[in-house]
Parts: sequence; structure tokens; C-alpha cells
Amino acid sequence: MVTLHLDPASGLPLYRQIRDEIRQLILTGRLAVGDRLPPSRELATRLGVHRTTVANAYAELTADGWISGHVGRGTFVAKGAEPPKPAQLAPAPGRSENGYVWTMLFADAPADDPLDAMLTDAATARDQRFIAFTTARPATELFPIADFRRCVGEVLRRDARALLQLGPSDGYPPLKEFLRHELRRQGLAVSDRELLITNGCQQALDLIRKVLLRPGDIVAMENPVYPGAIQTFGGGGVRAIGVPVTEKGLDVDALESLARQAGRIRLLLVTPNFHNPTGTTLSLDGRKRLLEWAARHQVPVVEDNIYGALRLRGRELASLKALDTAGLVIHLDSFSKVCFPGLRVGWIVASEPVIERLRIAKQATDLHTDQLAQAALAEFGQRGLLRRLLKRARQLYRARLERLEAALAAHFPEEATWVRPEGGMSVWVTLPAGLDSSALLFKARERRVLFTPGRFFYFQAPQPNTLRLGFAGVSEKQIPQGIEILGELIKSELRQRRRAPERRPAAARVALV
Amino acid sequence: MVTLHLDPASGLPLYRQIRDEIRQLILTGRLAVGDRLPPSRELATRLGVHRTTVANAYAELTADGWISGHVGRGTFVAKGAEPPKPAQLAPAPGRSENGYVWTMLFADAPADDPLDAMLTDAATARDQRFIAFTTARPATELFPIADFRRCVGEVLRRDARALLQLGPSDGYPPLKEFLRHELRRQGLAVSDRELLITNGCQQALDLIRKVLLRPGDIVAMENPVYPGAIQTFGGGGVRAIGVPVTEKGLDVDALESLARQAGRIRLLLVTPNFHNPTGTTLSLDGRKRLLEWAARHQVPVVEDNIYGALRLRGRELASLKALDTAGLVIHLDSFSKVCFPGLRVGWIVASEPVIERLRIAKQATDLHTDQLAQAALAEFGQRGLLRRLLKRARQLYRARLERLEAALAAHFPEEATWVRPEGGMSVWVTLPAGLDSSALLFKARERRVLFTPGRFFYFQAPQPNTLRLGFAGVSEKQIPQGIEILGELIKSELRQRRRAPERRPAAARVALV
Repeated sequence: MVTLHLDPASGLPLYRQIRDEIRQLILTGRLAVGDRLPPSRELATRLGVHRTTVANAYAELTADGWISGHVGRGTFVAKGAEPPKPAQLAPAPGRSENGYVWTMLFADAPADDPLDAMLTDAATARDQRFIAFTTARPATELFPIADFRRCVGEVLRRDARALLQLGPSDGYPPLKEFLRHELRRQGLAVSDRELLITNGCQQALDLIRKVLLRPGDIVAMENPVYPGAIQTFGGGGVRAIGVPVTEKGLDVDALESLARQAGRIRLLLVTPNFHNPTGTTLSLDGRKRLLEWAARHQVPVVEDNIYGALRLRGRELASLKALDTAGLVIHLDSFSKVCFPGLRVGWIVASEPVIERLRIAKQATDLHTDQLAQAALAEFGQRGLLRRLLKRARQLYRARLERLEAALAAHFPEEATWVRPEGGMSVWVTLPAGLDSSALLFKARERRVLFTPGRFFYFQAPQPNTLRLGFAGVSEKQIPQGIEILGELIKSELRQRRRAPERRPAAARVALV
Repeated sequence: MVTLHLDPASGLPLYRQIRDEIRQLILTGRLAVGDRLPPSRELATRLGVHRTTVANAYAELTADGWISGHVGRGTFVAKGAEPPKPAQLAPAPGRSENGYVWTMLFADAPADDPLDAMLTDAATARDQRFIAFTTARPATELFPIADFRRCVGEVLRRDARALLQLGPSDGYPPLKEFLRHELRRQGLAVSDRELLITNGCQQALDLIRKVLLRPGDIVAMENPVYPGAIQTFGGGGVRAIGVPVTEKGLDVDALESLARQAGRIRLLLVTPNFHNPTGTTLSLDGRKRLLEWAARHQVPVVEDNIYGALRLRGRELASLKALDTAGLVIHLDSFSKVCFPGLRVGWIVASEPVIERLRIAKQATDLHTDQLAQAALAEFGQRGLLRRLLKRARQLYRARLERLEAALAAHFPEEATWVRPEGGMSVWVTLPAGLDSSALLFKARERRVLFTPGRFFYFQAPQPNTLRLGFAGVSEKQIPQGIEILGELIKSELRQRRRAPERRPAAARVALV
């Protein structure tokens, strides 16, 4: 039997200590896939803590895919929670061992995470040894650096003293003015008081959580979903329920039926345009039905439009906010998928009372967003440089998407399927049932190809045979090379399985909820 | 009897609706100072909500100074919660009525708040008609704009593509390197993994709350305290207890005795150097005793060092972090009181496991701090410009402080007392008992002098006869002019009181807890 060591004096909540200890046991192999964890009541008694403390720890481990439970059978270490093999995935030098190594595979993980650093620095960025379909970031080679530098110089000449002093918490006025102009072109006529500048969409989610949610509240969101949304809504007392995604985006029928079972939904998070990771687009009919449902049940809808500007084909659809007559939609957007994510500037459009409350929360969080970045982006936009960059980005990404789709058709086995996205930065692939994309990743890495296993996007019922291929940052030359290698690996795995039908591993005992 | 209107479908937690409704009733004059509120149990029954919902609303209103309760007597609208008089304090045009107008008087309130906008734009900034002792911001006239512009140009020439792409969540490496060098000069030898870059100290507090606190936890902090700390720790389930401040900073004896009564304290927030608003400095002996107490009870100590670089006289004292042998101190600092608060860059020094957890929270909050700002500040520091600016700032603020103290001695009545700060940006004044600095502010404003009433810094037991005079942003010429006017107003009020001993107003019925 394994033992947990809690430190009541550490200042860290006990449930987090339990969660981290169990993660550590899994990461170090002391708990293996399929192992059964004690019931929360029993563990609570053994540890001398309240049962909800253990339940909270289990809930977070479940949300993160480490364990999974099945009513009446118990809680087990989940498939996909295997420890990384030390030789393959060494932590960065000097990094202390801790339970958070798993974050390294998050799509938008910062560059100091071991795997990410390996990709961007050692491999793709420097010597191009790796073909990395992992990220969903704009292609850096498109950034018009000289133009941007002129914009920065100009705003510092014009307005330095105001920029460098504290400013308004709702945003730098010229940027808000520019955005309101852009929003009008998208069919959104918004007043200054309906617009708040944030540090990108991740902060927007964080502020929304602070203002609109309390522990115990239920949030519905697509499953799979952007990992940052799981970080924000997938733990700490909020209960996230997953809405399946079809080829036409969020499944509104499933939403309606889930809502009938789950009880009052406090918030719906949805990405109608080019959903990350699946790349699906919610149809106009789906948008209208979703809004009708939200109005009927008075559920605020958070529309994540971060990929909205990156339509690569098909016809533009009205955003939920543009269709919103009930004032229930909170519309999020950001510069980060088009340009300069290192500057951290996004925005929220919502009705005035909501924006006012979010503004208060923003002020209590970090006073306001960096003003030099806001001013530089306003200038960049006003000079028409943003529009020009966007046009070039769409051309480039369209070419890369087409190259990727051609390569998939040529090299992937017939049993694999993928979504044909109308925009965004990634293609979602479903491998034949029984294949595990996390296992594939280890093999692919030996061949210097990287992608993101689908399980990192699920907060419930992870599908191990899915994966995300980000194409925006991979050159047209590398795309077919990388896909050919992945295709070979998958086909080889399929051939092996046909030759030696797999014994069901221990993990097969784990029923995913 | 007044009625509350709750909207269960609004998506806003009911306790917030109750809180906002009561605020609105006070702001619109339908509830007057001294009016008694129904007991929480009774109001809960009338509204059909759980009693804790009402208790939470009352707790927040109490923390914000709107109401105050006295065991066995009931809960009353507090003195100091008078509605702003419309003619004097008109909301900005087009501003919808809401319960948040009170935030306009916060010291570091953003410039779009009505009073603040009035100060900085209409008055001091443009036509110098107002003498504003309200803010605690660096003097903008010191900012070496041309130097800063060269720094920005240089980092964009050198590293634009990396800066403008997503970066590490713990901070831009050259800035961390520069800060580690500076910290060594302060007696803090810290590794890269003991340092996290944040969007200023306000975000540091927010991250600490996320990582270290759960609903129900008790936080101890100075009372009065920086309003941003009240925003972070004064509501939403965390219970803040106030530690009194003596002329030698936080009262360690009182802390020990409060801790014995209050139960387990989860976190202590303290500003040992030039505490905002009182300007006091914790003695070396006090620092050591505080650390001993913290080690004995294993309480993490958050040391807010934001004013630390602004020592204007007296001998440098070791920071708590420099004295910390138990690894319990989380040390916060920022550029914002020395230069460029519009850029929002600060940092946290703490032990590695704490920093790692804060980094994860930072990533989930906004991925990382703006990299252009980080790079520009690193360059500014490395070129020695920060040190030069700091030297000039200290000279200027010392001159202004001395001018202010001379003016106070010359013009304020004998019964008024004030703290002689060793650094920082403000002087804390205690008027004769019975005087109300909020009432004084309205009169002062007619004479075009502004300051911050002390009650905005209290989360418990506000002392209405206190006020904060920020001197860093007021010219040496204006300081004596403004203090002479304030002195006249205070003396005139005292004369009136002697002539006509005040009938006790309705508010006298309110016992402050």
C-alpha cells in the first residue's frame, strides 16, 4: 500500500497536497494505470481529513485525466496517466521534481516548460531538426518588425508620459476607439462602456470566473476544449460539464439534454468559430438554437472568438454577439492569434453592467493592461498594418492547411478521419479505435515529429485515439515530411495489432465516465 | 420599509445582488446613516435565501465601510456611507447608475473614475487649479522619456521576434537576470526558480490568494491598509482580520494576541517599509519578533516591499526576506513606485515550491507578463538609468516631504498629529477626535485642495478623523499652499465646535466594531 504524506503546516490547502501527492505517485510509477484508489471516505478517515477534502482532490485529478471513476466500481488510475519515461522526457536541468511536469504538453504552454523549450529552442527554432505540429501560435516570420518598431517609437513620442503613468482600468482610450471601429465592421456596434481591454483571452476567462461564478456553480463547455479553459473552469469548486462537439461544432441537442440532467447551468463557454482543438465551426442554425436555449434558461454565454479573424475558407458567419438580442453573450477576442502574443492584449464585449463588474475585477487583479502594448497595437491597427498582416496570415495558413490535408490524404491510413476546418490553426485527427496518440508521440519524437495528443484537451472521457495538428507554424516543406512519418508510424502500429491482437491491458478495467 | 429586488436568473450570485442593492439604497439616500438593517436571519427568510447568503452580503458591506454591526444591537448604515452629493460629485456623463461609485476615491484608482479623472485631467494635470495630495504615484516629470525610448528601440532591434511571441510564464530571462543582480545588492541571493515576474504587486496578491487561500481562511493584515489588499483579501469568503499599526509599524504584540483569539491564521500580509497609508516602518526588533511568531505558528508572511526603494531618511533595515531563515516569507516588489506604473511589472521572491505554484497560477491567469515592457525595463536597469532615476526621485521626494512637514507644523492645529515617515510617498494625519475627514474633503474641494480620507484604507473600525497626504506628486510650491488651506478649514471647524457643541447626530447610534 502506498502512503500519502500531508503537511498541515505547509500553508497549502490539504486537497492540493493530496492531489499533488497522488500525481507524484503516478509520475514516479508507484501507482500504475488501472490501480484502484481507496474510496474518498476511507482515505479521508485514514488521513484524518474531511471527506470533501479528498473528494476535491479526486475531482481535480479526474478533470486532469489522471484518474477516472465509475459509479459502483471505484476510482482508478486512468489510461494516459503513465509516467513520462525519464530517458525520453527529462526535466530541464536543475528543475526540482514536482507534480506539475504534465503541463509541459499544453498547447500554449510557455517556453520554459521542458517539452516546449525542446520544440521551440533546440529544435524548430534553431536547427530545424524537429517538425512541430504542437503549437497554435501565429507564424513569427510574418511579424513586420520594422513597422511595429515605428509604431512604438511614434506612440512614445506622442504620449509617453500618459502611457507610462497609471491609466484607466478599462483600457487605453485610443485602442478602445480603434477596436470599436473594427467591431462595427463585424456587425457589433458597441459603446465605450461595453468594451474592456484584458491581458488576452486567458485573463478574460479568469475575470469572468471571478465575477460570475461561485464554488458549486456548473459551467458547460465543449469537451474537448482549450486547456486554458480547463485550468480556469475545471477545478477549484466550479463543476464543468462537457458538451460533445460534432462536425458542426457544439452539439446543441446534447447541450439541451445535458442541461436537463445537470441542474442549473451558470455559464456556457463556446467557441463557434474554428474551435480549438477540433477546428469545427458552429452553423448559423446552431448559433440561433444555442441563443434561443440560453435566452429561455437565462444562461450567460461566453463566446471565445480568438480564432474568428482566421477564416481560411467558406462564408463568414455572424458571431453569437452579433445575433444576441437578449444581451447574454460575453464576447472574447484577442490579438494573440494574429500578431504579437508576447504583448498580451485582448478584449471583452458585453453589456454595460457586466463590463462594469469585470472592470472592477480587472482593477483588483492588476489595475490595467500594459499601456505601451495597448498604444502600440492601436497605432499598428490605425496605420492599416494589422489588416495587411491578417491578409498575409490568412494566405499563408490557407496554403499550409491545404498542404496538410493533402498530406493526410496521401499518408494516413484509411481508418483515420479528420475535421476539415474552415479556419483557425489546427486539424483534429481521430485515429482508428484502440490506438493511443500519447504512445504514438513517444515514437514520433524519436523520428523528430511532434504533435499534441488529444487527451490534453479533454476534461472528461478523454479519447486516447485523437490528436491535434497545428499547422500555422510549420513550413509547407515540412508539413508533408512530418505527416508521412506519422502516417508510417500509425500504419506500422496497425499492422502489428493485426498480427498480434492485443491482450487487454490493466487499463481496460478502467471505465471512463 | 425598503425592499430588495433580486433576480435569481441574472447569473450574478445572490449575495452580490443583495450587497449591490443595499449599496444602491444607501447611495440614493433611501437608507440613511444610522438606519438599522434587518437581522440576517430575518432578511434571509423574507428573501427566501439561505442565511449565509445574507451574512456574506453583510460581511462585504461591512468590509467596505457601508454598514457596521454591534453584537446584541444590530447592523446599521455606517457613518461615512453618505451618498455623494450630486452637485459635488456628478458621475461621468453617460455613466449608468450602479453601486460602485465609491471606488472613485481609491488612492490608485484608474483615471476613468470620476473623482480621479477630475483630479488628474481637469485639475492638476491641465490647469493646475487643484492641489491634489491624493495619489501615491511616482512624479511623472522625472521620467526620462528619451532614455526609455532608446531602451525600447534597442530591445526591439535585438530581440523583437522572441519578445513578440509567447514567452515563459515566469518572466523574460534578461529581466530576471537583472533583478537577481539587484536583489543580491539587497542581501537576497535568489535563484532563477525563486523569482516570478508579475503584472505589479496587485497581481502578486491575486496569485497568492489563488494559490494559498481557500474560502473560510483567515488573513491577517494591517488595518488601515492599501485598498488593493482589501479588494483582494477583504471579501469573497476569505476572512480578513486587522492588526493595528503603531508608530513603529505593525503591532506585533497585538498580532500575537489576535492570533490567539482568531484561530489559525493562513497568511499574514505586512508592509515593513513605509507602510501605505500610515508611512510607518517596522523596527528591526519588530521584524525579528514577527518572523519568530510566523515560524512558531508556520504562517506564510507576504512582505509588500513596493515602497522599499524609497527610503528618504534613516538607516536601511534588512527586509523580512533577508532575515527569513524558515523560508516562510513571500517578498513582493514592483517598478511602479519608482518608474512607469503604466507598464505593470513587478516580481515575487519566494522559495522554489511556492514560486512554482504561483507560476502555474500565473500561467492560468494570463500566460505571462507583457514581454516588451519586461525587456524595456531590463534594458533601462542594465544601463544604470533606473538607479539614476531612483536617486533623483529620492532627492525630490525628500524635499517634498520636508516641505510638507514644515507646512503641517506651521498651519495645522496643535491637536492634529502625524507620522514622520522614513520613506514612501505619504504622510498619515490624525485630526482631533470628532472631526470627519470625509466632510473636510468636500469643503477642501471647494477650495481646490484634495486628499484621501483615511476611511478608504480601513476594512474594520474606520477612524473618520484620519487622512492620507500623498506628497510625491505635488510641487514644493503647492505643498504649503494646500496645507495652509487645509489647516484653515480644520481650525475653522474646531472653532465652530467650541462655539456650538455638536448635537450627536443619528450616526452616533452606530457603534463601530
